Amino acid sequence: MIRAAIIGATGYAGAQLARLLYMHPEVQVVRYGSRSQEGKPYASIYGAFRDLVTEPCGGEDLSEIAEEADVIFTATPQGYLASVISEEILEKAKVIDLSADFRFHDTDVYEAWYKIEHQGKQFVPEAVYGLCELHRSEIPGARLVANPGCYTTCSILSLFPLVKDGLIRPETIVIDAKSGTSGAGRGAKVDNLFCEVNENVKAYGVATHRHTPEIEQELTLAGAGEVTVSFTPHLIPMQRGILVTAYANIKEGVTEEDVAASYQAMYASEPFVRLLGSSPAQTRFVYGSNYCDIGWVVDKRVGRVVVMAALDNLIKGAAGQAVQNMNLMFGFPETMGLEMIAEVP
Amino acid sequence: MIRAAIIGATGYAGAQLARLLYMHPEVQVVRYGSRSQEGKPYASIYGAFRDLVTEPCGGEDLSEIAEEADVIFTATPQGYLASVISEEILEKAKVIDLSADFRFHDTDVYEAWYKIEHQGKQFVPEAVYGLCELHRSEIPGARLVANPGCYTTCSILSLFPLVKDGLIRPETIVIDAKSGTSGAGRGAKVDNLFCEVNENVKAYGVATHRHTPEIEQELTLAGAGEVTVSFTPHLIPMQRGILVTAYANIKEGVTEEDVAASYQAMYASEPFVRLLGSSPAQTRFVYGSNYCDIGWVVDKRVGRVVVMAALDNLIKGAAGQAVQNMNLMFGFPETMGLEMIAEVP
Amino acid sequence: MIRAAIIGATGYAGAQLARLLYMHPEVQVVRYGSRSQEGKPYASIYGAFRDLVTEPCGGEDLSEIAEEADVIFTATPQGYLASVISEEILEKAKVIDLSADFRFHDTDVYEAWYKIEHQGKQFVPEAVYGLCELHRSEIPGARLVANPGCYTTCSILSLFPLVKDGLIRPETIVIDAKSGTSGAGRGAKVDNLFCEVNENVKAYGVATHRHTPEIEQELTLAGAGEVTVSFTPHLIPMQRGILVTAYANIKEGVTEEDVAASYQAMYASEPFVRLLGSSPAQTRFVYGSNYCDIGWVVDKRVGRVVVMAALDNLIKGAAGQAVQNMNLMFGFPETMGLEMIAEVP
Amino acid sequence: MIRAAIIGATGYAGAQLARLLYMHPEVQVVRYGSRSQEGKPYASIYGAFRDLVTEPCGGEDLSEIAEEADVIFTATPQGYLASVISEEILEKAKVIDLSADFRFHDTDVYEAWYKIEHQGKQFVPEAVYGLCELHRSEIPGARLVANPGCYTTCSILSLFPLVKDGLIRPETIVIDAKSGTSGAGRGAKVDNLFCEVNENVKAYGVATHRHTPEIEQELTLAGAGEVTVSFTPHLIPMQRGILVTAYANIKEGVTEEDVAASYQAMYASEPFVRLLGSSPAQTRFVYGSNYCDIGWVVDKRVGRVVVMAALDNLIKGAAGQAVQNMNLMFGFPETMGLEMIAEVP
Repeated sequence: MIRAAIIGATGYAGAQLARLLYMHPEVQVVRYGSRSQEGKPYASIYGAFRDLVTEPCGGEDLSEIAEEADVIFTATPQGYLASVISEEILEKAKVIDLSADFRFHDTDVYEAWYKIEHQGKQFVPEAVYGLCELHRSEIPGARLVANPGCYTTCSILSLFPLVKDGLIRPETIVIDAKSGTSGAGRGAKVDNLFCEVNENVKAYGVATHRHTPEIEQELTLAGAGEVTVSFTPHLIPMQRGILVTAYANIKEGVTEEDVAASYQAMYASEPFVRLLGSSPAQTRFVYGSNYCDIGWVVDKRVGRVVVMAALDNLIKGAAGQAVQNMNLMFGFPETMGLEMIAEVP
Repeated sequence: MIRAAIIGATGYAGAQLARLLYMHPEVQVVRYGSRSQEGKPYASIYGAFRDLVTEPCGGEDLSEIAEEADVIFTATPQGYLASVISEEILEKAKVIDLSADFRFHDTDVYEAWYKIEHQGKQFVPEAVYGLCELHRSEIPGARLVANPGCYTTCSILSLFPLVKDGLIRPETIVIDAKSGTSGAGRGAKVDNLFCEVNENVKAYGVATHRHTPEIEQELTLAGAGEVTVSFTPHLIPMQRGILVTAYANIKEGVTEEDVAASYQAMYASEPFVRLLGSSPAQTRFVYGSNYCDIGWVVDKRVGRVVVMAALDNLIKGAAGQAVQNMNLMFGFPETMGLEMIAEVP
Repeated sequence: MIRAAIIGATGYAGAQLARLLYMHPEVQVVRYGSRSQEGKPYASIYGAFRDLVTEPCGGEDLSEIAEEADVIFTATPQGYLASVISEEILEKAKVIDLSADFRFHDTDVYEAWYKIEHQGKQFVPEAVYGLCELHRSEIPGARLVANPGCYTTCSILSLFPLVKDGLIRPETIVIDAKSGTSGAGRGAKVDNLFCEVNENVKAYGVATHRHTPEIEQELTLAGAGEVTVSFTPHLIPMQRGILVTAYANIKEGVTEEDVAASYQAMYASEPFVRLLGSSPAQTRFVYGSNYCDIGWVVDKRVGRVVVMAALDNLIKGAAGQAVQNMNLMFGFPETMGLEMIAEVP
Repeated sequence: MIRAAIIGATGYAGAQLARLLYMHPEVQVVRYGSRSQEGKPYASIYGAFRDLVTEPCGGEDLSEIAEEADVIFTATPQGYLASVISEEILEKAKVIDLSADFRFHDTDVYEAWYKIEHQGKQFVPEAVYGLCELHRSEIPGARLVANPGCYTTCSILSLFPLVKDGLIRPETIVIDAKSGTSGAGRGAKVDNLFCEVNENVKAYGVATHRHTPEIEQELTLAGAGEVTVSFTPHLIPMQRGILVTAYANIKEGVTEEDVAASYQAMYASEPFVRLLGSSPAQTRFVYGSNYCDIGWVVDKRVGRVVVMAALDNLIKGAAGQAVQNMNLMFGFPETMGLEMIAEVP
């Protein structure tokens, strides 16, 4: 039994962390940190926890929290963790960060896309990018894990095998993503009101979305040279789920079988990646689960592959992935507490 | 470890049963029965089960199934179970019926409201109405449990204590219920198309809905004389969840405290009923869970109490309740496999 | 051609006013008033007006606006109009107020339910309650019209004939209303975020909602004594539309035919009330239109009538009604600019 | 005043035709044709027409209808019109076909993608492809107009100027489209049930969708050689609206200004195309209107242009476009009956 603290527990990712950790057999949550709601009963924010979580929201002082917790999850605004992290904290507690602060090896990239000065550069070298399917071996020994972004997880998992196996021309990659609204967070903004989101679809952050360089960093690791992508996210009227539709030109002679073999080789024994063949992925079949479902079609007529991948942005795209990282860091079975089947219907 | 069979496994309640039973530590599902889909892989109907359930849908021959299962869940059309149930089947397997066939003590009432001749009247006396909060003691010994309806569960739990404790005038009860669309089932009907349901609300079955006599039967058990209610269900554009808003005139002198005490007395130690005081119940805080949340307001100005209760129609209103009954029938802890926290947000 | 000004033009009711007035053949909008957005192009708030409305949002100084407009629509917070209205303004321009400031004959009632001191009591006697179906004759001569609330319009139209004709016992009236979220306005509040509203239903303002005394005031005019009602609004996951389900005990001997005759007598020649008989009203069939659809069922078994009425809260419940009032005040055909058929599907 | 007949009047496109034609000042609808509902009051299918349309649904015999109507709108299944059209009919009435039967100059393409033998090939040469922005001059003299598909209209309008002006490399075009569910029609299919569509997104018809060759045929007319595209439609949980996100590599040296100038040159005086510059198009701002809104971003970093275009699939993508064609064919102002502002919010 380990003790966990959640910083930013009243946001949507924080609430999913609270939920998953509550149901995890080896974890006790010792702090529901929330700057804005400190002192209010946590269950008064989310009635789902009524009679189950009786604690009030606590403060967010990391040094204090490091004394009482074995692991700290930070679901905090960009720049926050980098500004408060310290050697003292990391000596006492492991940190799993759901913000972007430690996702980039190159802080110049971070600063250029996030327009924030990085205040914790000394910890960048030791931070591990916590996409388990790519970096599993580095996670158990890490003190600081940078949990990947939601779009990023879905995009990287979709394309990594094809880039690595040289089946596609990386310079032709176009990623068109569709996301539910929980990805926009719980802030009180007019743009996220029901009447602005419902019965509507729009692109946003076109050519400027901050998950772009994160996707590029990781796809470049596939060894086919520096990868640059077009990434366009869209907001659609649902709460949860991301669907990535990725397009790329296949190299001469590449077949449907080659593509299938590439996915099989990389993911056949992955517990949380499911391969659908030519069946289009649907977000409802991953809703509430930690799976990333991937399907693909080779369109010979135009010489492109179309990859379709779905995940729950709050689970595999945030809290579930974070728990998967925690499992690896503390020696629990990787799937512990994460074997939920998607809600149906 | 017991063996369970699901008849009607491809309907929405059947799918929830499949999901809950898959995750239940003491159950192995041995049959996913579906007349219409026999032979097709179950996971091809609901992609949520991909890589988890590899069996095809099986047939629905109850006699055959009774040989291989310890418990049979029937999520079948009204009249079906009554027409095929037999002593032989009940000697071999316990049956938990999600249809209305064995909910009524008086088959005349059933036949009048359902317009179906009851073909299994000999089993009516032994059937137990499986609302655990009212009939917990009778369930363990039962061979045949009639799982309550979704509206019914929510309505009865809302009002039973107040009727029993004589706090309201039963002849003034008005129940206005709002339901998500999964309650209408997975049949291919124009009325349930997205474009007919979305951005719409309507009442249906006004004065004729079949859950009415079921509510009346159980509230009459509260001992305040024969209870007759106005019950009006509404369809609203969501998938899951029922909210019941019940109105009744309070008797002279009844206070907010009396009402609170009545709920406390009956439900304080119930594992799946949560009392919210004057806080309005919200369906999202029970989505995916087995809870029924109940709040109330005494409106002295008009001399009425307004009770608001929420549950997930597919869980506490169907599959979860059925598993709760199964737990009681087989001596498992009543809450086993049912301790999910509602999805948030 | 008259000149109209909208105060509060960037709210949802204001935007509908902008839309309806733009399409009205006898109106030119001369001011899109918005305190918070003054100076910004109106079409930058609502892209629907792109290339059509090129003006920026203007200020909200009523005295200045009265110089340039023949009619002023105020879609402003409670208390605002009462605090700025003056004889000078009313001498120059007619005012149609969408707030509650002038809806009550008795300002004590207003102050008790709204917790606001009324600062324009001298204008209360001349204000006309602008529900055309009840007060048509008083509207043409009015300088100040109080446009009714959305729930109120739907509730009063549902029940007025039955109270007036003595068919129901007024003390048994229970009104259960369901509303889309646009009724909550465009303010940036967490409660109205997509992820808080979607896949959810809840009651709010139980026993305290401010539309209650407005309903009571008007139903009392029906001449059956002082009417007191239970009124409970619910928020459901749609944008537009209100459905009222009203319950009342019928008097001894009252038949379905009596009820139908009562509705016919009052509404047969009303241009914007449609009678559905026993067919349940659906909000989608009034979406975008100025109709109020009313259906009813007499449930002899329990001695109650169930009335179901639907309207679009932003049209017949706000902007459309306001235009209907304007038409009457300026001598245009009452239906001018309001003959839209609901969007289908 | 002309007389119009609608064949397939109970489908969603048919209902929008009924609505727009009812509100059109120069049209009288003389037939609401529906094979499945013949004899039933049209308003009993769509309550929106209650008290307005009192006629029953009529039959679909084109020869009979041609006697009574000046124009016939056919919103019928693929292959139907081609199998019944005749010289006699076209001599008596003009036909505007909302199916794909006469959209292709090359019937081989039609037969290959639709898997239907074309039974009216003799009328293909005279049929005009009714995308007014491309073929305005040919429409007034046509007897038979093939109304374009919904995805098609949005895709062609998005890309035509850029192809024509040689700003993009046509072989790099990728079109990712998102559609509301009304595009799937009113057929009773499980896939279109609320519970299957809501809270879900999926691609469908990947590499095989029938609107692909239609887009290619028209873009090829732009004169930059034969155009082949990747087209992938997605179903999202809303009723109405299509958003097209189109990607293409820009040619060396092409700037944001070049792209803007290209759109301006082609659409500046179009009544129903609105140019948004770098502002992303949103479907809610065209909901219920006949506009197609187009925005774009030149992403220099990756050398691509991203075009975003929105329209209402039932209006500009079907019924509105058909009325626009009718206006041109009968000499009415092109915008008559089509000047609706989108519903807000």
